[in-house]
Amino acid sequence: MSIPKMQALRKPRPEPGAQIESVEVPATRPGEVLVRVRAASICGTDLHIYHWDAWSASRLRPPLTFGHEFCGVVEAVGEGVTRFAPGDRVTAEMHVACGHCRPCRAGQPHVCQNVRILGIDQDGCFAEFVRIPAGNLWKLDAGIPEHYAAIMDPLGNAVHSVLAGSIAGCTVAVTGCGPIGLMSIAVAKACGCSTLYATEISPHRAKLASEMGADLVLNPKETDAVARVLAETAGAGVDVLLEMSGNPAAIRQGLKMLRPGGRASLLGIPAEPVTLDLLEDVIFKGATVQGIYGRRMFETWLQMSALLRDGRLNLEPLFKERLRLGEYAQAFRLLEQGAAGKVILLPDGV
Amino acid sequence: MSIPKMQALRKPRPEPGAQIESVEVPATRPGEVLVRVRAASICGTDLHIYHWDAWSASRLRPPLTFGHEFCGVVEAVGEGVTRFAPGDRVTAEMHVACGHCRPCRAGQPHVCQNVRILGIDQDGCFAEFVRIPAGNLWKLDAGIPEHYAAIMDPLGNAVHSVLAGSIAGCTVAVTGCGPIGLMSIAVAKACGCSTLYATEISPHRAKLASEMGADLVLNPKETDAVARVLAETAGAGVDVLLEMSGNPAAIRQGLKMLRPGGRASLLGIPAEPVTLDLLEDVIFKGATVQGIYGRRMFETWLQMSALLRDGRLNLEPLFKERLRLGEYAQAFRLLEQGAAGKVILLPDGV
Amino acid sequence: MSIPKMQALRKPRPEPGAQIESVEVPATRPGEVLVRVRAASICGTDLHIYHWDAWSASRLRPPLTFGHEFCGVVEAVGEGVTRFAPGDRVTAEMHVACGHCRPCRAGQPHVCQNVRILGIDQDGCFAEFVRIPAGNLWKLDAGIPEHYAAIMDPLGNAVHSVLAGSIAGCTVAVTGCGPIGLMSIAVAKACGCSTLYATEISPHRAKLASEMGADLVLNPKETDAVARVLAETAGAGVDVLLEMSGNPAAIRQGLKMLRPGGRASLLGIPAEPVTLDLLEDVIFKGATVQGIYGRRMFETWLQMSALLRDGRLNLEPLFKERLRLGEYAQAFRLLEQGAAGKVILLPDGV
Amino acid sequence: MSIPKMQALRKPRPEPGAQIESVEVPATRPGEVLVRVRAASICGTDLHIYHWDAWSASRLRPPLTFGHEFCGVVEAVGEGVTRFAPGDRVTAEMHVACGHCRPCRAGQPHVCQNVRILGIDQDGCFAEFVRIPAGNLWKLDAGIPEHYAAIMDPLGNAVHSVLAGSIAGCTVAVTGCGPIGLMSIAVAKACGCSTLYATEISPHRAKLASEMGADLVLNPKETDAVARVLAETAGAGVDVLLEMSGNPAAIRQGLKMLRPGGRASLLGIPAEPVTLDLLEDVIFKGATVQGIYGRRMFETWLQMSALLRDGRLNLEPLFKERLRLGEYAQAFRLLEQGAAGKVILLPDGV
Repeated sequence: MSIPKMQALRKPRPEPGAQIESVEVPATRPGEVLVRVRAASICGTDLHIYHWDAWSASRLRPPLTFGHEFCGVVEAVGEGVTRFAPGDRVTAEMHVACGHCRPCRAGQPHVCQNVRILGIDQDGCFAEFVRIPAGNLWKLDAGIPEHYAAIMDPLGNAVHSVLAGSIAGCTVAVTGCGPIGLMSIAVAKACGCSTLYATEISPHRAKLASEMGADLVLNPKETDAVARVLAETAGAGVDVLLEMSGNPAAIRQGLKMLRPGGRASLLGIPAEPVTLDLLEDVIFKGATVQGIYGRRMFETWLQMSALLRDGRLNLEPLFKERLRLGEYAQAFRLLEQGAAGKVILLPDGV
Repeated sequence: MSIPKMQALRKPRPEPGAQIESVEVPATRPGEVLVRVRAASICGTDLHIYHWDAWSASRLRPPLTFGHEFCGVVEAVGEGVTRFAPGDRVTAEMHVACGHCRPCRAGQPHVCQNVRILGIDQDGCFAEFVRIPAGNLWKLDAGIPEHYAAIMDPLGNAVHSVLAGSIAGCTVAVTGCGPIGLMSIAVAKACGCSTLYATEISPHRAKLASEMGADLVLNPKETDAVARVLAETAGAGVDVLLEMSGNPAAIRQGLKMLRPGGRASLLGIPAEPVTLDLLEDVIFKGATVQGIYGRRMFETWLQMSALLRDGRLNLEPLFKERLRLGEYAQAFRLLEQGAAGKVILLPDGV
Repeated sequence: MSIPKMQALRKPRPEPGAQIESVEVPATRPGEVLVRVRAASICGTDLHIYHWDAWSASRLRPPLTFGHEFCGVVEAVGEGVTRFAPGDRVTAEMHVACGHCRPCRAGQPHVCQNVRILGIDQDGCFAEFVRIPAGNLWKLDAGIPEHYAAIMDPLGNAVHSVLAGSIAGCTVAVTGCGPIGLMSIAVAKACGCSTLYATEISPHRAKLASEMGADLVLNPKETDAVARVLAETAGAGVDVLLEMSGNPAAIRQGLKMLRPGGRASLLGIPAEPVTLDLLEDVIFKGATVQGIYGRRMFETWLQMSALLRDGRLNLEPLFKERLRLGEYAQAFRLLEQGAAGKVILLPDGV
Repeated sequence: MSIPKMQALRKPRPEPGAQIESVEVPATRPGEVLVRVRAASICGTDLHIYHWDAWSASRLRPPLTFGHEFCGVVEAVGEGVTRFAPGDRVTAEMHVACGHCRPCRAGQPHVCQNVRILGIDQDGCFAEFVRIPAGNLWKLDAGIPEHYAAIMDPLGNAVHSVLAGSIAGCTVAVTGCGPIGLMSIAVAKACGCSTLYATEISPHRAKLASEMGADLVLNPKETDAVARVLAETAGAGVDVLLEMSGNPAAIRQGLKMLRPGGRASLLGIPAEPVTLDLLEDVIFKGATVQGIYGRRMFETWLQMSALLRDGRLNLEPLFKERLRLGEYAQAFRLLEQGAAGKVILLPDGV
């Protein structure tokens, strides 16, 4: 009997680039589920993989099907899987935690020390089918549209950041308005935050930030953003900082905007070590600085599903092109042009 | 009628040094309490004031009686003070919060934006008498010895740090074994912490760390302390970091020792900006980094009083000389020699 | 010099009833502020006082000006008051905490053991002027309308209840749709809650509950509300119970609606002991049951001010008549008819 | 090939009693581990099963090997199990969570809605071998003695209760000094609690409570325990109530002993509905009442392992007889005599 084949976007060798290949549809193993991909989305990490940066070279072991943002429909379930059935609409948490390390045992599988990420350490979702451990699969509420379902991985980053502490009635600064920064604006507003200040240097992204609900968007190249936020808050600073840029200067500015006793949630990825005025901006302030990684498994998914199901989040301004999987090169180009937005990739047959 | 006089250790002018002067006993004002000092203790901050460093020059307005660690007995109470009476044994929280700024209103008066510190912004306790707002006065349990009562300010820093998150059953690293670092070892152990690793370069302080209960004391000049702690914790790292040194290298090492999902409480005061591997050591780790300043008003005081009253803390190894207030020069010299310990100053007449 | 007089609604003697009297305007004492009342509102407690129930008889010491919900304008400030000035628009937290008992010292002044309530233990706001300790006064944001400002005391109860734990993305049951129950619906929705179920037997209040944002309002006299909520939540139950009725049957139903691991915040005042299935509904469920009393000082006020300032709460359906202070008898009658709503009382001269 | 046999203590039919039978050693299935039992311990629940009370009749489906407290050595591991190997010393969390219900997804598998308990819903540990899902197995630290390892299930109940909120520096009341109550005394003391009051009517258990570290043990049949605890705490009440009796009167007394703003953790199992003064003892107090069930998976296990490994808990007074598995009738009789203590059962061949 011949094994069925499928189209997949692959990194064939440890070098820049990618290509569409015909590969075997993954076998359905015990405890795992085979999902037919309906829509995938591209993460900044996928651009790094495509261009084969230092991090990619150190971590990935090609050949590999990459991609880790998607939604789809269950095609087949492996032995012992009782909670999913063919036809179920699903997405997935692509970080597979080991369940045994100390963070896992302490209820923090999102920082598992032995995590395997589908689309990075194993085959991912830029294909017609993807295989997922049943425990990582997430059934979609009927009311969640497909393009929203395809981006629940990064939306989960935003929800995790916003809800990592108090938010209702809090003033907020969002530093950096890439896709996750923009989503975090919508999420914070939906959860009752008070005045929200955003910083962003791209005029296009700044405009999107306003559309997502930011009350004041500042360009730190043109304005003393710290002075302005302090002035707006009667000298106190904001209750919550959501750092979404990874830019060292933005991190420093964000911490200067934070009030004593405030909470800073850092999600942006700095490319280098960061020099901080730790004494004034953290210690004397009695600030709480949280590293944010991934999504809480699965509190974040519950929260995010509720917000989406209830129609609390208008993310339409974020969505750009819908392209076929085979048009990946065009998709990557679009994203490199820096327009914060999500490009949806559709496999053949969808 | 002549106003009574008292001896006080004063910073008379904005320059190095100090001197004993005869000044008026403070008048007892409404809502305030006059306390006869029984024993005072010297903080590292007092050394900075004595030598008149840049921070002192920027903040203090001499003439001033300095000193902010003490215990005493109520001498007289001002109008409207009903909860204290002459003869009460007391100590005090010397940070006077405004009660109206946003941190105060948010239940965080320990990071009040308008704080006035007695002994820094107003006259302090290196004198025969000190005047304290009634709300800042703390009645001492009968069983707390005088020399312990005199150091509840720095002990409160240690208690605040240790109890700023979970500690029972947690592995701990203490980086830096000055007086507050040493106290934090005793406090963490009294609160049920698990294996406690300390780092310290002074052999004398390292010995004290063991006496206070550290399970393993490492000299980072001689040992790869990070590698050792990771090895001891099966590669996981510790649950809790208590950073007590302010040394940038120690801060970096401490964060490297921390497990994913762990808690870092930073109390040590860096003299300069600190460069961190924020991505690996905080963000990807999902770590929580807390700035620790002062003492929670007054949760920390309740906790600390209970630990002292119940005899849970053996701090005897910390106590060095007892000297007369007039012997202040000798006291400061002793402390500068770097032996982590507390020198008690006794006013005349005690 | 004659002391100025004002009109006040008084309980002159320990018996049912009340009357308008002409009394002296309170003197402005050190640390206190005299406020000219612009609008007051009537609490259920005021009805108890008016009718002189057992609780009133055991606690109040007439003669007394009652009333504890209001807003106004600063008329004069006492000695030592620096943060308020004549003309400031204000309201107040009417629970005056002692600052020294264990709950106060532990950061929980809202459950002070020696609390004095203005309008119950001392003269309150049903008058042209009311005197407030400066620490209890709350400056109003410019954008908050007067009738909203007059009901921040009960609105604070609702905000305290809703934000006593996680709410964003949580399913919620509100049992009892009196004024605070209705406000809690609006607050929970503004803070991103998911599906909200309310129970109420009065058709009028049920209609108001829908207007405030409840997704489904059930009449427990007509429907098996527990079965319905469990069915709607796929058998799980809700994440959060807000108990606003004080009715023993409603409390039991609410706890049956709660999911394992859920949070129940109890604010409604039962008139008698309550029999609970503690084993099934609390212990085996691992539920957290919180008593809610008053408002967090002053976290709740910060949160509530932000929600009001940002226009997040539409409370218009709650407001009924505006009457003169002298029309108090009519006001009390209106409220006794059970229409959940707030009646605003206007002193003469306003 | 003949299937190997083992001795097991079984409930053969739905009726009182039990008997030793020779049954097949469980087959080692994928993802599961076969453990040779070294020592088992008897829970109060086992007595209910033995006597076949109403709860047992409603839940159990005989024939069944019961028992859910034990330690042992891995005999064989099923397919896919990589983290355990024959010879590993282990114990286990016997509550098998589904991983998919809302509490599981919300990080609260200890209140899983579909939990299966080994020894109640499936075969347990009163046998020579027991089969455990790998995710529920817990590797023992080398320093933990066998008899302590055999009682980590109930010790986990105690640790879960004590560490469900702040404990260091807190005053505590423990109502009911059965085995878990006694363990909770030792745990609270090891975690730095302040004065601990215990109530117990059995003189023998009261003596044990003192041995475990209680500062004052009161017999509520002889003393007004509430009045005494209030007097001892200057009228405030205790910070923490650990309710370990399930007795309605004790629950009411415990809540009366609790200070405003305090925490009550309820673990004892009431046999009937409980009537509470909910208004005075919970609502007006702003108390937090927590149902405690099972153990946090696996935070509690980490905490408990650390406390045991570090020798922080002296539980020797709790241990009574060691008997052979075949002497079960004698063991049950011993426990029915009400001496709070743990009886260890040893299978043949150990």
